[in-house]
Amino acid sequence: MAKNKQKMVSEITAMNMDFAQWYTDIVKKAELIAYTSVKGCMVIRPYGYAIWEHMQHILDTKFKKTGHENVNMPMFIPESLLQKEKDHVEGFAPEVAWVTHGGSEKLEERVCVRPTSETLFCDHYADIIHSYRDLPKLYNQWVSVVRWEKTTRPFLRSREFLWQEGHTIHATAEEAMEETVQMLNIYADFCEKSLAMPVIKGQKTESDKFAGAVATYAIEAMMHDGKALQAGTSHYFGDGFAKAFQIQFAGKDNQLTYPHQTSWGVSTRLIGAIIMTHGDDNGLVLPPAVAPIQAVIVPIAQHKEGVLEKAAELYETLKAQGIRVKLDDSDNTPGWKFAQYEMKGVPVRIEIGPKDIENNQCVAAVRYSGEKQTIALDDAYATLFATVQQLLDTQIPQGMFEKALENRRSKTFACTTMEAIQQALETHGDCFIEAMWCGDEACEDKVKEVTGVGSRCIPFEQHHHSDTCVCCGKPAKQMVLWAKAY
Amino acid sequence: MAKNKQKMVSEITAMNMDFAQWYTDIVKKAELIAYTSVKGCMVIRPYGYAIWEHMQHILDTKFKKTGHENVNMPMFIPESLLQKEKDHVEGFAPEVAWVTHGGSEKLEERVCVRPTSETLFCDHYADIIHSYRDLPKLYNQWVSVVRWEKTTRPFLRSREFLWQEGHTIHATAEEAMEETVQMLNIYADFCEKSLAMPVIKGQKTESDKFAGAVATYAIEAMMHDGKALQAGTSHYFGDGFAKAFQIQFAGKDNQLTYPHQTSWGVSTRLIGAIIMTHGDDNGLVLPPAVAPIQAVIVPIAQHKEGVLEKAAELYETLKAQGIRVKLDDSDNTPGWKFAQYEMKGVPVRIEIGPKDIENNQCVAAVRYSGEKQTIALDDAYATLFATVQQLLDTQIPQGMFEKALENRRSKTFACTTMEAIQQALETHGDCFIEAMWCGDEACEDKVKEVTGVGSRCIPFEQHHHSDTCVCCGKPAKQMVLWAKAY
Repeated sequence: MAKNKQKMVSEITAMNMDFAQWYTDIVKKAELIAYTSVKGCMVIRPYGYAIWEHMQHILDTKFKKTGHENVNMPMFIPESLLQKEKDHVEGFAPEVAWVTHGGSEKLEERVCVRPTSETLFCDHYADIIHSYRDLPKLYNQWVSVVRWEKTTRPFLRSREFLWQEGHTIHATAEEAMEETVQMLNIYADFCEKSLAMPVIKGQKTESDKFAGAVATYAIEAMMHDGKALQAGTSHYFGDGFAKAFQIQFAGKDNQLTYPHQTSWGVSTRLIGAIIMTHGDDNGLVLPPAVAPIQAVIVPIAQHKEGVLEKAAELYETLKAQGIRVKLDDSDNTPGWKFAQYEMKGVPVRIEIGPKDIENNQCVAAVRYSGEKQTIALDDAYATLFATVQQLLDTQIPQGMFEKALENRRSKTFACTTMEAIQQALETHGDCFIEAMWCGDEACEDKVKEVTGVGSRCIPFEQHHHSDTCVCCGKPAKQMVLWAKAY
Repeated sequence: MAKNKQKMVSEITAMNMDFAQWYTDIVKKAELIAYTSVKGCMVIRPYGYAIWEHMQHILDTKFKKTGHENVNMPMFIPESLLQKEKDHVEGFAPEVAWVTHGGSEKLEERVCVRPTSETLFCDHYADIIHSYRDLPKLYNQWVSVVRWEKTTRPFLRSREFLWQEGHTIHATAEEAMEETVQMLNIYADFCEKSLAMPVIKGQKTESDKFAGAVATYAIEAMMHDGKALQAGTSHYFGDGFAKAFQIQFAGKDNQLTYPHQTSWGVSTRLIGAIIMTHGDDNGLVLPPAVAPIQAVIVPIAQHKEGVLEKAAELYETLKAQGIRVKLDDSDNTPGWKFAQYEMKGVPVRIEIGPKDIENNQCVAAVRYSGEKQTIALDDAYATLFATVQQLLDTQIPQGMFEKALENRRSKTFACTTMEAIQQALETHGDCFIEAMWCGDEACEDKVKEVTGVGSRCIPFEQHHHSDTCVCCGKPAKQMVLWAKAY
C-alpha cells in the first residue's frame, strides 16, 4: 500500500524543483489532457473536459441572466474580411492558419480559421442592424479558435483552444462601456467565487491592448510561482469596427449613427490557472464548484463485513442530495486510492472502515488543507450531508481563496526605484511589483528590459506609492502592476 | 392589423408552390440563420441556436446516462493521419479543407480541418489503451466539422456544420455491435419523442455505408414533400480502424487483441428536418421539447385597464412552473404578434383581453393544429398551468407525431415492379417506395437510374411484398426503402 502510493506520487516532479515540469506532470497524471500527432494541439480528456463543462455551465447561466444570447458564427474568415480593420489584421495575421484548398481545388480567396471573431460578428451586424430598435445585440458563442503559436503548453498556449467570445453592439458609447465593465466584473466574480482564485482587475496599457480596441480590461491572477496569468479580458471598441464595417443605425431622430461595440472572453486557460493557483506536490487541487468529483468515498478494509454496504449508503445519501460523489470500491488498496484522488484534486475524501462503523462515524479529509475531521453518522446521515455541503459550498472555497490570496500578498512588493524592483526579484524570485508610472511607453519598455517584469495592468484599485515614475522620475500618472507572465 | 398580418405572411412562398423556396423563406423569416460573406457557411442566430441548445441538452443527458463522457479532440488532422485507413481517406479526402500555411510560413505537412474524427480518436486510443482494464472507452464530442460541399443549403448541407460525434471502443465485437444499436435507438427515441418526427430504422446498403465502416445504420424521416432525410447514423467498425492504427490491448489471458469500434452522430441537420416535417404555410412549427419559447402570451386591447396586469400574472405563473414563456407587451398589434409567433413556430399562444378577464378565462391556440380552447382562470391558475403543461408534454407532441406519421403513411407505397414504382412517383409525386431487392448493387443502381429513387435503408421492420427483386426478378433477400433524399 505505502509502496503503491510512493510510486505514484514519485512520478510527479516537486513543485519547487521544477515548476514547469510539475505542471506538465499534473496535466498528464491527473488525466486532463493527452498529447497528439497534431503539433501544438491536445486532446482534452474526460476529466479535463468535465471541468470545462462545469465552467461553461456556471458562466453561461451568468451570461443568460444578464440578457446575452448564444449564436454560432462560421469558423472561417475570408482574407478580405479579416483585412477590413487595420489594427486588427496587423495583430492577428501573423498567427492565423490559412486554408487554401477545398479538396483538390485551390480556393479563389483563401480563408483563415478564426483566431477571434470580431470581423464575422461585424459582417453579421452590418446585415441585421438598421434601426435603434435593433439594438443592443448581446451575443456570445462557445467555440474553439486557432492561433498558430510556435511554442505551446497545455491549456496555457496551444494552437487551438476552447473559449467563449462575447460580442455586443450598443446605441451609445456609455452603454458599451457599461457592458465592458459588467463582463469584467462577472469574470472576476466567477474566478474568485467559483474558482477560489483571487484576481486583480485593471486596464491594459496602450501597448498591451487588443488589436482594434480602444481599451482592454483584464483580470490578472498570481500563480504559485509568482508569475502572472491573464485570466480573462473585456474590450471596449468604441465605433472603430462599426466604421470599418459600415454598420450604421437610424436613431429615433432618423439620423444615421455608428453603434459602439465590445468583446470579452475566457478560455480553457482557466484550467491551467486552477492548476498553478491551487495545485501542490500531491497533484491537482480543484475548487468544488468545477470539480467533476466533489467527494470520493474510500472504504477501508472493504473485505470486512458491512464496510461496502455502509459505504454504499453514504454514497446514495450524498448523491441524492445533488453532490457529485464517487464510491471507489475497486480492489486497489486504500493507499493507492488516496494518492489517486489527491492527484485528481477531489476536494473531499470520505473514509469509512470497520472501526468507524463500530463508532458510528466516518472521516472526512479535505484535499487543499489535508485536514481531517470525524463525522457522526446519525439519523438519515443529516450531519454528514450538512458537513460535506458546508465544506463544498463555503469552507473549502473560502479556505482555498484565502490561501491563494496569502500567497499573492506574500509575493507582492511596492517599489519606488528600478533597483528596488531588481532587489525584490532577486530576493523573492518571481513576484508582483507595484510601481508608479508616468504613462510613457518608453519607460514601460525599459522597466521590462532592465528588470524582466512587464506591465500586467493598471489596477482599478490604485495605491499611491510615490509621486514619480519608477523609471524616469517624472510625475507619475498611475500605479502599474508589473510581473512576468504566462 | 389584418394588413400587417397579410404583409408578413405573404412574404413566405406557399409550400406547394415551391417547397425549396418555402424552406429558405422560413429559415430566414423565423430568424434561424443569416447568410454570411463566408461562402457555404451560415450564422446560426439566437433563435436557431437555442433550438440546438435544447437538442444538445436532451441528447447529452441521454449520452451521459448511458455512460458516455465528453472529450475534445483537435480540429486538425495531419495528412498522414487521415491516410491511415484506406477506405476512410478515399471517402473524405475529396471534400476536406486543407490548411497549408501558419501565418506566413508554409507547413511542413499540411493538415485538414476534421470532416469527422475517427482518425483522431484512433490516434488517441492507440496512446491510452493497453489492457482490457482500459476498455471500453465511451467518448463523445460536441464540435463542428467541415466538408467542402459545392452546393449548400442552410442546415441541410453546409461547408461547416455543428454535430456530436460519439466514438467508442470495446473489447469484443458483440459489445461494439450492442453499442451501435443502442445509439441508433437513442436517436430514434429522441426524434420520435422530443422532435415528434417518425423515423424508420434500418441498415444502409454496402454502397451507401460510411467510409471505413463494416456496417452503417441510419434513421430515415419523411419530409413534407415526400423526400427522405437521413436524421442520424450509427456505424459499426469491427476492428478495421484498430488494425490500421495498431490499437491493441492485452486481454485477461495476456494475449494482444484488436478492439472493436463504433461511431455515431446527429447534427444541426435535425433543425432542417423539423422545419420540413412540421412546418406549414404560416411558418415554422416547433415541437415543445426544443422550442425556445413554448408559450407566448398576447394581450388583446392591452391599453384597456387591467389587461397587462392580468397578462403579467399569467406569465409569472407559467414561468414559475418552469415553462419557457414569453409575454409580448410591445406596441405591435395583436394581429402582427399572432403572425410573428406563428412564423416562429411557438407551440402555444395564450390570448387574454378585456372580455376574457370579464369571463375569468383566457384562450389557448395550438400552433400545429390551429385549435383554440377556452381555459378558466381559477384559483392560483391551476387549470391554466395543468392545461398548458398537458398540451406541451403530451397532446402537442403526440398530435404532431401522428400528423407526420399520417403524411408518411399516405405517401408510402409497396411496389413489386419497376413500372409500379414509376407509376407511384408519377401519381403521387415524391414518396417512399417499399420494394424487394436481391442484394445486387447493379439492381440498386438500376432502380435509381430508371426511377430516380435511391435505396435509403434496409428497414429493421421488414414487410414481405413479393419473393423476387423488383429489378431483376431473381429471388429477393430484403425489402428496401427507396426514396429521393436530401
